Amino acid sequence: MSTELLVHEDRLFPSDPGVRALARDLYAGVRDLPLISPHGHTNPAWFAENEAFPDPATLFIQPDHYLFRMLYSQGYRLEDLGIPRLDGGAVETDTRKIWRIFADNYFLFRGTPSRMWFDHALSFVFGIDKGLSPETADEIYDTVEEKLAKPEFRPRALFDRFNIEVIATTEPPNDDLRHHDAIKASDWGGRVITAFRPDPVVDPEFAGFADNVGKLGALTGENTRTWPGYLAALRQRRAYFMERGATSTDHGHPSALTADLSKADCEVLFAKVLTRDHTAAEAEIFRAQMLTEMAAMSLDDGLVLQIHPGSLRNHNKTLFETFGRDMGADIPMQTDYVNALKPLLDRFGNEPGLSIILFTLDETAYSRELATLAGHYPTVKLGPAWWFYDSPEGMLRYRRAVTETAGFYNTVGFNDDTRAFLSIPARHDVARRIDCRFLAELVAEHRLGEAEAAEVAHDLAYRLAKSAYKL
Amino acid sequence: MSTELLVHEDRLFPSDPGVRALARDLYAGVRDLPLISPHGHTNPAWFAENEAFPDPATLFIQPDHYLFRMLYSQGYRLEDLGIPRLDGGAVETDTRKIWRIFADNYFLFRGTPSRMWFDHALSFVFGIDKGLSPETADEIYDTVEEKLAKPEFRPRALFDRFNIEVIATTEPPNDDLRHHDAIKASDWGGRVITAFRPDPVVDPEFAGFADNVGKLGALTGENTRTWPGYLAALRQRRAYFMERGATSTDHGHPSALTADLSKADCEVLFAKVLTRDHTAAEAEIFRAQMLTEMAAMSLDDGLVLQIHPGSLRNHNKTLFETFGRDMGADIPMQTDYVNALKPLLDRFGNEPGLSIILFTLDETAYSRELATLAGHYPTVKLGPAWWFYDSPEGMLRYRRAVTETAGFYNTVGFNDDTRAFLSIPARHDVARRIDCRFLAELVAEHRLGEAEAAEVAHDLAYRLAKSAYKL
Amino acid sequence: MSTELLVHEDRLFPSDPGVRALARDLYAGVRDLPLISPHGHTNPAWFAENEAFPDPATLFIQPDHYLFRMLYSQGYRLEDLGIPRLDGGAVETDTRKIWRIFADNYFLFRGTPSRMWFDHALSFVFGIDKGLSPETADEIYDTVEEKLAKPEFRPRALFDRFNIEVIATTEPPNDDLRHHDAIKASDWGGRVITAFRPDPVVDPEFAGFADNVGKLGALTGENTRTWPGYLAALRQRRAYFMERGATSTDHGHPSALTADLSKADCEVLFAKVLTRDHTAAEAEIFRAQMLTEMAAMSLDDGLVLQIHPGSLRNHNKTLFETFGRDMGADIPMQTDYVNALKPLLDRFGNEPGLSIILFTLDETAYSRELATLAGHYPTVKLGPAWWFYDSPEGMLRYRRAVTETAGFYNTVGFNDDTRAFLSIPARHDVARRIDCRFLAELVAEHRLGEAEAAEVAHDLAYRLAKSAYKL
Repeated sequence: MSTELLVHEDRLFPSDPGVRALARDLYAGVRDLPLISPHGHTNPAWFAENEAFPDPATLFIQPDHYLFRMLYSQGYRLEDLGIPRLDGGAVETDTRKIWRIFADNYFLFRGTPSRMWFDHALSFVFGIDKGLSPETADEIYDTVEEKLAKPEFRPRALFDRFNIEVIATTEPPNDDLRHHDAIKASDWGGRVITAFRPDPVVDPEFAGFADNVGKLGALTGENTRTWPGYLAALRQRRAYFMERGATSTDHGHPSALTADLSKADCEVLFAKVLTRDHTAAEAEIFRAQMLTEMAAMSLDDGLVLQIHPGSLRNHNKTLFETFGRDMGADIPMQTDYVNALKPLLDRFGNEPGLSIILFTLDETAYSRELATLAGHYPTVKLGPAWWFYDSPEGMLRYRRAVTETAGFYNTVGFNDDTRAFLSIPARHDVARRIDCRFLAELVAEHRLGEAEAAEVAHDLAYRLAKSAYKL
Repeated sequence: MSTELLVHEDRLFPSDPGVRALARDLYAGVRDLPLISPHGHTNPAWFAENEAFPDPATLFIQPDHYLFRMLYSQGYRLEDLGIPRLDGGAVETDTRKIWRIFADNYFLFRGTPSRMWFDHALSFVFGIDKGLSPETADEIYDTVEEKLAKPEFRPRALFDRFNIEVIATTEPPNDDLRHHDAIKASDWGGRVITAFRPDPVVDPEFAGFADNVGKLGALTGENTRTWPGYLAALRQRRAYFMERGATSTDHGHPSALTADLSKADCEVLFAKVLTRDHTAAEAEIFRAQMLTEMAAMSLDDGLVLQIHPGSLRNHNKTLFETFGRDMGADIPMQTDYVNALKPLLDRFGNEPGLSIILFTLDETAYSRELATLAGHYPTVKLGPAWWFYDSPEGMLRYRRAVTETAGFYNTVGFNDDTRAFLSIPARHDVARRIDCRFLAELVAEHRLGEAEAAEVAHDLAYRLAKSAYKL
Repeated sequence: MSTELLVHEDRLFPSDPGVRALARDLYAGVRDLPLISPHGHTNPAWFAENEAFPDPATLFIQPDHYLFRMLYSQGYRLEDLGIPRLDGGAVETDTRKIWRIFADNYFLFRGTPSRMWFDHALSFVFGIDKGLSPETADEIYDTVEEKLAKPEFRPRALFDRFNIEVIATTEPPNDDLRHHDAIKASDWGGRVITAFRPDPVVDPEFAGFADNVGKLGALTGENTRTWPGYLAALRQRRAYFMERGATSTDHGHPSALTADLSKADCEVLFAKVLTRDHTAAEAEIFRAQMLTEMAAMSLDDGLVLQIHPGSLRNHNKTLFETFGRDMGADIPMQTDYVNALKPLLDRFGNEPGLSIILFTLDETAYSRELATLAGHYPTVKLGPAWWFYDSPEGMLRYRRAVTETAGFYNTVGFNDDTRAFLSIPARHDVARRIDCRFLAELVAEHRLGEAEAAEVAHDLAYRLAKSAYKL
């Protein structure tokens, strides 16, 4: 691997010299804008406690299911990568050994975004200009380890250096948000807000659902064994989250189904799911109803409602039983929006002040259902290319499929949506480059003026995320 | 916005200089060919009466759901845009005020085909070289208004200037086609033909279905309360339409489902739908059967059968109740063809003389089902990229997905499919440019010879539409 | 058609001069690598008997459903092309006349891969540099006919000249594989292996299923009227095929459905399908169970399991009744993998040593389901773009959709998958060119180093097919 590749100045720009020059110009206007990160999964404890990050393997590999899923696909056991087993069984603890497995197999990531993010982090964060390989594994391990011990590599210092204007974490309703309180109480000025992710208390198939609802009652003083008490408790927690900066809720359901049941039906269904006396179909309807309830609450409190549907979580049964959730075995499914969202939209689709941001793992929905919904309903906006599609090709397909019907202004800018803190600058940089590339192509083909394109580039990189998420 | 953008000579061509030169050459060979418009929704009264068009807002904005859906998506009320309410409630009547809303928000259309069509109309039809913006709004309004009052901006003059060789309108079976008769009787030579769109009398869920069937009986002297009488009446109206130039029928069903029921079953089903004693599933089967009946009639009379399936019409309940149909809230759905068309194709799929043109709003069907069906069945051809996909990216995706399996000669050239008369030259121009661009890429990559490409370009721009629609 | 087009040295490379130069360099490194053909449908009798191929029409047109489906779609009768009717009715026997129909309509293939393969065969195999047209039809017919009579155009000579290192044919379990034995016993060194395609004995809807299972019993001495005897017979035949070089099995089911029934349920179901006392749904479940049984056997004997789902075979009823299977009327359907494969993967998805290669005719599954499954499960790899997508655009879409999630190393190189022997060099050449083009684009956009790209190009053209298929 040639070292200059790690962060080539023109990476991701079109190869045609004329279009590349346009892309460069547009990018120059947005590359140094602050990062708005309205949806993600970083750990607020990092910023509250500001401890040094652990060793390179524990920092990079173990929390990143993009990385270990690829190694797993080629026959490595998760135990070999130090992923903890639920039964506490033995796993590799020699982090340098784990790092070498990664380095030996780094070629597997050719052509993937993980490769780009990792190279960018090495270069941008650690000043390393050599690519990872079996030959450089130890040297890079040592350099990263040494730097991580320094004060300027602690979470808050990196946050500042990354030029993050605001970042949202994601917490469940029963979280006490103590880290957010600690950050606020500290003398550090970084803006870290929470987001309200109620899956554990609104999804009857979430592990421990009934217990979670019980704790929600204990926490709020509401009787969450009744439907009205349950809703009141949720409302109370939303307010609690809003006091810690939350501007949005997030919903990770298997589908985008919504429902609009009568209060009587809701009460019957709630009693069933609380006592686990429900079918899979009833669990689905309950989640569907809860999306509509969340929209109703958003009408009152103004939280932006995000729907992230379409993943069949924990597809690998053995892995789930051995290691638990989020082990890189979530597989997207066909996802319907046009029928699924109708009950919610029939009730609230035209309400001024309500804002719903839709995401998808089914790219076929972009031009067919999502751009058409976002291009019509005042309440609906379209989130950026998500998860497997948070990638150069994914983002290009997104803009090409969406723009002609929804325009740019029914989209909401970029989400990094990650727990891999060190990849955040790289991810925003990829989005800015790809958007500038797309715009440069429009300019080169005389579909957009250059001054307009510069304005749109700024909107996509900064303004739209701020306004869509009320930041 | 730079003024030169409005109609740059090289718009939509590839940016690579070599390929652009090839595209230019191919385009030069087709740019001035007459326009064949075999399917669309212009109002025949325009050409019959040849009155001046109304003011700019009423001309451009109010009939164009592409335009007002975007404004609606950003929070404007349809009342503010002068769209009439069903209850006769107050709406904005100051057309200059409506125009200013449009101008203030014209940036929303960046990257959309509406922007391209509108700019083209300003420049090509009205000779305006400034882009619409808050600053130019009044000046452009005045210029357009002034020109619309002149004889050379009346419908017939524009028709001639647009170089339209033939245009088809679309009418329901109970229409008396008086405007077509008037055009024929006039001294004007423009060729305006009708097309037979029987949805109001073959779709049990169409508003007023039973009444419409009753009127069909009155109009034809057939007893449309019986299945044979109903079919005979339809046959009679098809003949009436053919006398007014019709060469095609058109069917806008929710799905592409076809059926092949026994006569006895048809009679039972017809009785049900006529008395509204049917389920939604029975309505769907009735429509399905009627596609097959229409194919049977086409075998006799030669009308080309067009199927436009896959839109969930009037998705926005409140808007539908307040303003009626066609308010920009039609959302595409997943659409199956392979199973849906089998009953019809099992019966008629190999009949010489029958011609079925398929359209889709589900782009995933292009390469999977539509190109494979059109590349095999002698009765099946594939219509152009439709509706939301009547756009540069949409057309490119279409050619790239379809050509390798169906070739060029199982497609039928371009349809403008619009009621926005002033956008017709722009739409054909976009199609010609994109087809030439696609062909130029094939030539540049040595997949097609240049002389062959020129022949194909001519076929796509002119010949195929004439032959596929028997014009 | 300009003659230089037939095999332009730069065909399929990107038009940008810089990227084209990169593509050329990468291609130069792989163009002369031996061909690995791990899955296809050539006739082993050709290589066993080494007889001269028949006349041009019989060689090129009649066995190639890509060619005659296009002619059929434009109104030619299959009888006119010499395709034998099941009833023995009269068909055209004048092969020169058939050839002229093809030549007259050769323009229909513009933009299709058939055109590219045919031109390549004319030029590369027969040294003809004129394109086929009405004017050149007879001359080309004569030249091809004359050459086919020469020794150096016999199957073995062409095999050697094509630089085929190994080719797999496909046979049903009851085949005696005598041709493979004859090849092995001959003094010719070409490596022709078989592959085990059990559809006729595992698909209850395959013509003659029960008879086939009976013959399987007779052949193996097992009692195939019992479930254990049936499985034992299949195991025995797999061993028989492995002795003739087989390294893989292949399964052409309508869907990718798998099942994991109890032994008791299997016995009941087997009794039903054997006596034709089954519903369509039960036939589907039986096929689903048999995929899982085949995976179980693969765990023992190491055969690689290929799944080719998603085609609605013989869609054209009349054609099927008149001419039989494989008449160009197989139409792809929407295909689910994420739910369909779960039963099999729940049981065997993490087994070291098992290898499953997935194919699709539903391109929407690439990024959504297939890259995500292959990028996680150690047992799952992704086969190349298949059938209608074995084409330049199809392969580009494949790489663009798949690589970012699955990388290159969860794919398996190229399959020609053809019975058109003379097209094999062309098909591999297209794949190599398109892969080099894709890689050149990554290099030009600084997403991959040039040396790395060269290594990947070699892997895609040669190494991956050998390792994935254990060749």
